[in-house]
Amino acid sequence: MSITAAQGFLAAGVAAGIKSNGRPDLALVVNQGPRFDAAGVFTSNRVFAAPVAWSRQAIADGQLQAVVLNSGGANACTGRPGYLDSVATADRVASVVGCEPGAVGVCSTGLIGVRLPMEALLSGVDLAQRALTADGGDDAARAIMTTDTVPKQASAQGAGGYTIGGMAKGAGMLAPGLATMLVVLTTDAVVDSPVLQASLEQATSLTFDRIDSDGCMSTNDTVLLLASGASGISPEPGEFTANLARVCWSLARQLIADAEGATHDIAIEVVGAASEDDALEVARSIGRSNLFKCAIFGNDPNWGRVLSATGVTRAAFDPDQLDVSINGVQVCRGGGLGDDRALVDLTPRECHVLVDLHAGQAAATIWTNDLTYDYVKENAEYSS
Amino acid sequence: MSITAAQGFLAAGVAAGIKSNGRPDLALVVNQGPRFDAAGVFTSNRVFAAPVAWSRQAIADGQLQAVVLNSGGANACTGRPGYLDSVATADRVASVVGCEPGAVGVCSTGLIGVRLPMEALLSGVDLAQRALTADGGDDAARAIMTTDTVPKQASAQGAGGYTIGGMAKGAGMLAPGLATMLVVLTTDAVVDSPVLQASLEQATSLTFDRIDSDGCMSTNDTVLLLASGASGISPEPGEFTANLARVCWSLARQLIADAEGATHDIAIEVVGAASEDDALEVARSIGRSNLFKCAIFGNDPNWGRVLSATGVTRAAFDPDQLDVSINGVQVCRGGGLGDDRALVDLTPRECHVLVDLHAGQAAATIWTNDLTYDYVKENAEYSS
Repeated sequence: MSITAAQGFLAAGVAAGIKSNGRPDLALVVNQGPRFDAAGVFTSNRVFAAPVAWSRQAIADGQLQAVVLNSGGANACTGRPGYLDSVATADRVASVVGCEPGAVGVCSTGLIGVRLPMEALLSGVDLAQRALTADGGDDAARAIMTTDTVPKQASAQGAGGYTIGGMAKGAGMLAPGLATMLVVLTTDAVVDSPVLQASLEQATSLTFDRIDSDGCMSTNDTVLLLASGASGISPEPGEFTANLARVCWSLARQLIADAEGATHDIAIEVVGAASEDDALEVARSIGRSNLFKCAIFGNDPNWGRVLSATGVTRAAFDPDQLDVSINGVQVCRGGGLGDDRALVDLTPRECHVLVDLHAGQAAATIWTNDLTYDYVKENAEYSS
Repeated sequence: MSITAAQGFLAAGVAAGIKSNGRPDLALVVNQGPRFDAAGVFTSNRVFAAPVAWSRQAIADGQLQAVVLNSGGANACTGRPGYLDSVATADRVASVVGCEPGAVGVCSTGLIGVRLPMEALLSGVDLAQRALTADGGDDAARAIMTTDTVPKQASAQGAGGYTIGGMAKGAGMLAPGLATMLVVLTTDAVVDSPVLQASLEQATSLTFDRIDSDGCMSTNDTVLLLASGASGISPEPGEFTANLARVCWSLARQLIADAEGATHDIAIEVVGAASEDDALEVARSIGRSNLFKCAIFGNDPNWGRVLSATGVTRAAFDPDQLDVSINGVQVCRGGGLGDDRALVDLTPRECHVLVDLHAGQAAATIWTNDLTYDYVKENAEYSS
């Protein structure tokens, strides 16, 4: 179930003293080969963190041998000094692992605008190197948690017996483009880096890009995929991508399930759209309506807020043709009143909103969360 | 200070029994002439309410003699029957006031997706007609309140002695395009309806369009401006527009001050932009960041959330050139750490965030609110 489920990978998670509370805060993942193909996707936020700048360069040749991740500080908006901190981190990992600095991906998560405590971090790299084991995936997944309450891990077996494993962190600043988080994926399949990159882009566009907990896109989003080739199996690309998407979706769903303060996980499914882009635009608009999200928190099947969020999009639809069902009850029919809203049971954590635009055959689903007291509390208190 | 401050207007506010709590819920405004020029701007939401559909038609000829407004129900997403309810309302007003139905604007506010109690509403029209007085503006302003805690009114005197008065309601679903609310403005100036319309569009684009409390655009937004000509004064259009914008800004500022659950009124001023559109896009993006809004609630000058919201825009800027000041303290300089954030005092209700993009000479300001427990509470409980 972890990033060490695939052959050829070692991992560790240690407490380096970056977090003031003494919890694990540094993870190291090492690919032992024989191959070092790698792929990555990064935040599209134009204000991106130093480790994102570094990792984009490091992965440009399609090869990585190690990834180091720290919680306790995002190293974002820290200027040239912050960038040099990421370089120094990669350099230390390279020296203890025995590779080039350019073969080391760096990820950071935590507060924006604060320099990392580099002495603690570099000592932590040494500590993590000594702790590397072939079953260290769990420890690594715990070391990257910030406001996460549980570690997030997933794995899948592919045809012939290759494995894909993954871990993720992320609970706030969860929005598409891609969804905000750090993710490391590993596989022992034999996949050339251009194919690996294409598979990763396709898998993330259908998974992490379709969750939007709070509409806020982070400066540090990173998904890295390392392929050791240790299984000796060369999968068919379509089959590999499908398995990769399964692992990514499991992690994405775990992110939504652990989103800050949430009491509902909400699937917003838009059908009957003229195009997939239309379906996505409508689903995202609903998923970003604070009023809709508050209503779901209040177990209130407020379909008027679904319609008003639909109405601000450019998607093709006739307002008098809109149907909305919430948890199986068609509360809005033809843009007006449908079945009795009292029939809707919103007590389960998982909630399903179905919008039919009656404008075509395309469909898409976005997952989001409700807006709660605890979301406000966590994010009012997080950095003070 | 009210809509009856201008000569030629009568108004009333009564309890018609539309609201279940017995509070005033129906307002009537009548223009006694001698002129009946009128202008209107409406929600750009494609899912718009029946009274919006009606009022758009009614004002197409640039003439209105009366406006009837009800709280206690939005008459939105009510289909053809709901539209006929708006027609019946205009018809009853026309018969008691003595004009054509097409000279009556209709506005509704309250829950979406519920039919209005028409018997109560039509009796209320009769009641309101009998209560019309030349100082009924206050009563009218109270009758249109929903979750508003105070009535909102404003007035201004123009050159030569003409008057502009106004009232507004709105506390949630406050977002631009235009900001969500009902507003009635009156003037005794002599202004032809095409000039009136141009003045109104310009005034609203600089005022109501620049407040965004919660990013949610309503189905019922309406601003109507009635000109009686009773002062006999024909103002210079630029001077008239400036005074109209003053009244609109006063009302807009009152809307922000009474936004649901808010504890801070936040001015987000973006300067050094390559264009006004860029400045507006950045200011709106910051104003819609739930994480930023939670931070301000927590009295936390979290400039990292300002930068991450800036980074998702298409505006021209270099991330390493961004400056951010919060309440006068430059907490971010050149995209990195600035002065000590502990120097920022966020205890006053009014908060000023200044972002310098260093990309040009244009500037714009958007006003928003913080995101609080009480916002969530009000909107989780509003309709259940």
